[in-house]
Amino acid sequence: EEEPVPPLPDFFEDKTFFLYGDFEAPERRLLQRYVTAFGGTLAQYMSEKVTHVVTAQEWDETFEEALELNPALAFVRPRWVLLCGERLRPLPAQPFAVVPRA
Amino acid sequence: EEEPVPPLPDFFEDKTFFLYGDFEAPERRLLQRYVTAFGGTLAQYMSEKVTHVVTAQEWDETFEEALELNPALAFVRPRWVLLCGERLRPLPAQPFAVVPRA
Repeated sequence: EEEPVPPLPDFFEDKTFFLYGDFEAPERRLLQRYVTAFGGTLAQYMSEKVTHVVTAQEWDETFEEALELNPALAFVRPRWVLLCGERLRPLPAQPFAVVPRA
Repeated sequence: EEEPVPPLPDFFEDKTFFLYGDFEAPERRLLQRYVTAFGGTLAQYMSEKVTHVVTAQEWDETFEEALELNPALAFVRPRWVLLCGERLRPLPAQPFAVVPRA
């Protein structure tokens, strides 16, 4: 008798992700896939529903403006999403935060 | 008749701060003063009660260990605390996050 398929963990369930800036197509697809697989929402455009902006680019002034609308907004590197997906669990985002270049 | 003294805002009320590493004495005193003035708690040593580690130093491996014990722990630059104190209001910590050097 077959084991039931274990459900996918849903650790992104309360998060809405916006992919900002350029990504290589395979990486973009993998980011979208991981966000979706683990219960997250992908935003097509920036809005106040977004909780996490994922970007490989440097900090820019529009991030400050976005923070004024939503002070709790997180800016994270793609690597955070990819590692959570590979490890199948939520990792702390702090080491992957996007910050202004000193 | 005198106006009542307005209460200090307490935007650090739910936060516990640990000052990690070296600080010039005047800056350390100002950090302690702002944390206390705005309702925050100063931890004498690291513990799971700490919500915010304030440091001028670079990311180090002990931060990863601390995150394992408390995945929601925030690592921030002193400048965040100082700016909140100067502005008398909570600012988003994201631009002041401490991240591993690329």
